[in-house]
Order: sequence, then structure tokens, then C-alpha cells
Amino acid sequence: MTTRNSVKRFHGMALWFALGFCAAAQAAVDFVAPPPAKGFAAPPLPEGPLYYPTGEGHEIKVVVVARGLSFPYSIAFLPDGAMLVSEKNAGRLRVVRNGVLDPRPANGIPKVIANNFSGLLDIELHPEFDSNQLIYFSYNKALDEGTAVAVARGRWDGRDLQDVKDIYVTAPGTTAGSRIAFGADGRLYVTIFGAFGNVPQQGDVVDGKVLRLTADGQIPPDNPFVGKAGFKPEIYSMGHRSATGLALHERTGQLWELEMGPNGGDEVNILKPGANYGWPLVSTGRNYAGPYQTKAFNNVEGMEDPVIYWMPSISVSGIAFYRGDKFPAWQNSLFVGGMRTGEIAGTGRLERIHLNADMQEIRRETLLADLRRRIREVAVSPDGYIYVLTDEADGALLRIEPSDRQTEKR
Amino acid sequence: MTTRNSVKRFHGMALWFALGFCAAAQAAVDFVAPPPAKGFAAPPLPEGPLYYPTGEGHEIKVVVVARGLSFPYSIAFLPDGAMLVSEKNAGRLRVVRNGVLDPRPANGIPKVIANNFSGLLDIELHPEFDSNQLIYFSYNKALDEGTAVAVARGRWDGRDLQDVKDIYVTAPGTTAGSRIAFGADGRLYVTIFGAFGNVPQQGDVVDGKVLRLTADGQIPPDNPFVGKAGFKPEIYSMGHRSATGLALHERTGQLWELEMGPNGGDEVNILKPGANYGWPLVSTGRNYAGPYQTKAFNNVEGMEDPVIYWMPSISVSGIAFYRGDKFPAWQNSLFVGGMRTGEIAGTGRLERIHLNADMQEIRRETLLADLRRRIREVAVSPDGYIYVLTDEADGALLRIEPSDRQTEKR
Repeated sequence: MTTRNSVKRFHGMALWFALGFCAAAQAAVDFVAPPPAKGFAAPPLPEGPLYYPTGEGHEIKVVVVARGLSFPYSIAFLPDGAMLVSEKNAGRLRVVRNGVLDPRPANGIPKVIANNFSGLLDIELHPEFDSNQLIYFSYNKALDEGTAVAVARGRWDGRDLQDVKDIYVTAPGTTAGSRIAFGADGRLYVTIFGAFGNVPQQGDVVDGKVLRLTADGQIPPDNPFVGKAGFKPEIYSMGHRSATGLALHERTGQLWELEMGPNGGDEVNILKPGANYGWPLVSTGRNYAGPYQTKAFNNVEGMEDPVIYWMPSISVSGIAFYRGDKFPAWQNSLFVGGMRTGEIAGTGRLERIHLNADMQEIRRETLLADLRRRIREVAVSPDGYIYVLTDEADGALLRIEPSDRQTEKR
Repeated sequence: MTTRNSVKRFHGMALWFALGFCAAAQAAVDFVAPPPAKGFAAPPLPEGPLYYPTGEGHEIKVVVVARGLSFPYSIAFLPDGAMLVSEKNAGRLRVVRNGVLDPRPANGIPKVIANNFSGLLDIELHPEFDSNQLIYFSYNKALDEGTAVAVARGRWDGRDLQDVKDIYVTAPGTTAGSRIAFGADGRLYVTIFGAFGNVPQQGDVVDGKVLRLTADGQIPPDNPFVGKAGFKPEIYSMGHRSATGLALHERTGQLWELEMGPNGGDEVNILKPGANYGWPLVSTGRNYAGPYQTKAFNNVEGMEDPVIYWMPSISVSGIAFYRGDKFPAWQNSLFVGGMRTGEIAGTGRLERIHLNADMQEIRRETLLADLRRRIREVAVSPDGYIYVLTDEADGALLRIEPSDRQTEKR
């Protein structure tokens, strides 16, 4: 099996690794990330496409669609084929048309608190965007009394956002991250990170919760805590640490929430009204000094258990169900981005979780680990391609396609 | 940052992956491994050394010491600097002297049941090998009444094993794997895999147990179940699934046991006399069809909890604590081999678990994943190098050393 050519390729790879090793480390510090890796930075992305094998037997092609994005956070697909990308740290909304990044950011994004920990966050289209052109986004906002998480919306005119206004703003004091998604019920679900202390268990603050709002930012009267003393009525579910991802599963109407734990506590939950997901009382994570957060891993009265876990953590980020016709072997697969920087070979990845018909995990696959990059977001386009964002100062938008080349079969 | 050279290297790597993709899959089916990957086989190992960055900031060099080993399973270091390697499937004991594999296998190994699921297994030196030259090994043995796991010992004459005899043989009906290790108490600990049904909870069979024997294979009178009705007196601990690894931690005298779970149930336990480690009643694993094995992940009365978990599984194999002066940043690190073949980028690995002074995990690092190989065994030599075995028909013995080359610092 050992051929001269393959040996040469192998040496090339080893040199390539060394190159990455020598460059200065420049990983961004994430809100709740583990200690950064020492002495390692990712090598540059190539100009041309990359080809990789996968565990289901097909080859994929990975294309760099855009680069130079400032810590991009979220992707939204417009019906005309264009894509919107939020740049977290720069607080800008960017547009990709016909596969080309428009150098001019869209107008209409308000001033955000933009740094490694906050900025312009998630973007979502209204379910009836075709008729109302409404785009929603979450961001970190400076109030006179302190910092807040805000959800705003505006009307997309094909180039810029018009008539932008905040539809929901947290009380001052929140600096956390957020994801947003429309549920099958047409309500807007908003996650507010809440890593610290016992706040995720406190009903009178929104930190560490998932909120449920109308499309106008009002409280739906059927929210589970409406009228319940000591609870904010916008709360839908509680006991979350950092809910970095939200994905609607269209067939079941379930909303799947991805949650970044501490050292060994990443998890996926299926959201239910009024449910308590346990943080910090129930978790499989350790605190960063070593001891487990709690002896209670799961199965605690009154607490809802995750459906998928990571031990150790991969520093989960975005989440998306695959749908479309481009990857038949990936139907019913769940994709999750990973930003872990402490592992060399596993530095950042796209993880594919193969689900059975009952939506239970049967196996997993690590993709894109060779890129050595933090994967911040994964999204499936209406035409069935998979897009990811790398979390870097010179961040990239990548597209995963079926391979288009002949491969030797032996 | 994008240079022409680095792009060329990157393309070389992509081609290299495609090469592996095209070759026919030839992964060995392990005793309790998850379903094999489709359409992927590892590319050949190079002739020359490989260099990799690590998460603690130093570079490592990986050297192929020997190849052509038939599914090698275990390594033992002789005081004269030679190494013994067991070939599971071939049922042979091989010798590496001065870094060269002797083409002649050592004599003295009895006939073993040699196939993908069984054969010649673990090798250990008696703690007083210097004075008695005794070598112990475990293997799968054919009895008239069925198959058994046996532990044998023989005297090493520098070339062959002399006076080999079985010192312990299970009852017929056991086809399982086994690891052996001497404890700090001078007793010989023997693991017997027990993946199926409730047998790990049954005291009258040795499957799914760790046994404790004298160096002559007898029952120590202070064994925890001696005189207890319904229990085999050789049992030291119970409730194990497939105990693929055993490692003595010299400072504390603790014996750490590595256990391969089902889908998401790999774990490390610290062995205590008479303790029950829960399988199949307590586990974080799923069965391969998807549902969790049990709702009880941990913290169950009367059951001992693991200290380290994997979700998803990496199909754990061998285990070793680092000691020595070659890798100062890896003092107090635990190394674990992984044989998972369902993940492409994570196909096989050497995982390093960074422990704090209280022996609690604080972070992990994935090493050697680029080799795309099942790592069956990891062992630390008396002079502080790390050796691993790849689980293949053309298996390799690899040595990890500190890097010996100048690297550009930027």
C-alpha cells in the first residue's frame, strides 16, 4: 500500500501542521470558552476547493465562499438566493449575492456593543418574509443604565434594512449572547445566555432562559409562566447555561436547543413549555478547575434531561437539521458546530449526528477538523447545501457540496 | 497569511484524504465496536518521522518503529531496553531490540484462539522481573468444553519464554478480551470483558469483572468476596462492561480501569475492593439502535461512579499515565487510545487527559487523529517515551518523542 506519492503527500501535511504551529496563537476568547490553546493557530484556508471523505461513504467538496468577515456569527438565506451574514465583533450586516460578498455592509443595524464577547448576533427571517420582508436580529445594546440584549426587526429592501426598531430589550445588566428562531407556532424564541451563578434557576430574570415572544415582541397570553408570581412572563423554559443554538425540526415542530456547558457539559435539549433544564443543579460538566459541577448528571425530579451530550465538550455553537436533496445519506442528520481550541487535531469541527426515525442518536461523525478552525455557525440553505462560518478576525463563509470530481474506486 | 506554499500543502493533504477514501475499507471488527465506517481506510504510514504541534505548546515527533504486526495488542518493556509486543490475531509474541523488530517470534506462547475477537492479549512483567524473569500474559484458550480466558506465565531467557504454564483459566464459555496488571500490592489484576446481558452483575461468573490473584494465580485470602455466598472469590470488582485498559498510578497506588461502553458509555474507573461499577444498570451509553441503555447515568446507591467519561464514545483501548522526563508539560497526564472508526477526522486517536493535582480532568487533547488509525495500546517506556500500537492487519509500533528539529518562531 505504501506508494512514493502518498508518502510525499503525508510529509506535506506534516509540514503544513508545523506551519500552523509556528504562527502566533490568535484564537478569540469566547464568552464561556475553556482556556485557550497554547502555541497553535490555524493555517490559512486555500484558494481552491477541498475534498474530504465522509463516514457514510460519499465525498464532499468544501468551497470558501467569502473571507475577511469579522467574527461572523449567523447566516440567513433570502428567497432570491442572497445570503445575510452578521459580523459579531464589527456589528455589521453583510450580504453575499451570487456567491460574492458585497464589500458594502447593509445599512440599518443600530450601534452594538461590539467586542469578543458581544456584538451583532443572530439573524432570522420572518416566516412570511415573502410578503412582509421582515428580518429579525439580536444584539448587545448599551442602555444608560447598563448593557442589554435586544431583539430588533427591520424591513429588507433588497439592499438595506428599513424602519428598524427594537421589539424586545432585556433589563440592563445583561451582556450575554443570544440566538433567535421562529417556532412552528409562529412565535419568536429568544435565548439569553446565563452562565454565572444560580440565575438560570431564578424566574425573575431572563438570563439563562429561552423566551417566547410574538412576532411584535409582545408576551403571548399562553406563555407557561404568565400570571405566575416571581416569573417573568416572557420565559418559555429555564435552567439553561449558554444556549448557543436553536433549530426547528420541521417534521415534528420541535425546537432543539444547543447549550454550551462548562468542561464536559455541552448538550442538546428539546424545548418544552415551562420546563427546567437544570443548570447549574443538573449537568454532566466539570468546572474548569476539575471537580464536577454537581453529582446530579440527569434524571432529577422536576428537571428535563438533554437528548444529546458531549463529554468532553467541543464548545458547541450553531445547530441545524439537514434537509434537501444534495446529501441523501445525511437525511435526518443534525449538524452542530464546535469551537473547542484546546485540542489540536479536534480544534473546531462540524459534528454530524446521525439520528434514527425516533430522533435518537445512533452515531456521530467529525467533519472539517482538518481546517483547525472554530466553527461558529452551521446553516442549511433552501437548496440543500450546508454553510458554515469560522470564528476568526478573518472569518470565512464555507459551503459544503457533494463532490463534483471522479474518484478512483478500488 | 495565505502563501502559495501553504496552499500547495493544503491541496496535498486533500488529495491524501481522497486516496484513503478510495481504498477499500478494511477496519477490523472489534469485540464491542460500533458499526464499522463505510468507504474509508487509512492511507499508508510514511517512512520518515511526522511532526505535530500539541496543545501545551511543544512539538512532537512520531516515528514508526516497526510495521507488519498482526493486530498488535500490548507492549511490555524489558530492563535491557528490548520491547515485547503481542500480536492478537496471529497469537505471537514479538521482540523489538535496538529499535528493530526481530523477524522470529519468541517461542513459548501456547496455542490461542486467534481471530478478530480473540487471541494473544496482554503482556506484563512481574514486579520483580529483574530477579525472577517472569512474564505474564492473557489469551483466549480452547478447552474441550468450550472457550476460556487464561492467564499464563513463563520465564524469559532473553529470546524465548521457558516453563510456560497457565496460572488461571476461566470456566468454559468465555470468549472475551482481557487486560492484566500488577497492583501496588503485588497482586495480579485481571479484567474479563462482559458486554452481554446482566452477567456483570452476577457474582457467580467472572465475565464483566476485575479479578485479583496472587502472582501464582491463587486467591488472596483478603479478596473482598472470599466466603461470600454466590460470589467467585477471585472477583475484586464487578459491574464492568469491557475493561480494555488497566493502569497503575504509582504515586497514589490507585489502579485505573478503562472501560469501553456502548454508544456513548466509555469511562475510566478507579478500582476499589468489592465495588460495583454499574454496568448494565448505570451507564451514560446508548444501545446501538438509539435509546439510552438506562435512565441512571450516575449517583446510584451502591454503585461506584466513573471519574472520566466519553460521550460520544471513542472506543477506548489502552491506558497509561505519563511519567518520565521527556515531556515536562505532560506530567500527570493520562493517555488513552481510541479505536472509533465511524468518525472520519477522529478515526482513532491518542487522547491526552490533563489532570490536576487531585487527579481530576481539567482538559483533553486529541493526538494522532491525522493518522486515521485505530490506536489499540499506549505505553510509557522506562525512559519516558510514549509508544502506541495501531490495530490493523499491517499494524505498527509508533514512538512519540520530543521534536528534534528547529522550528521557526514568529
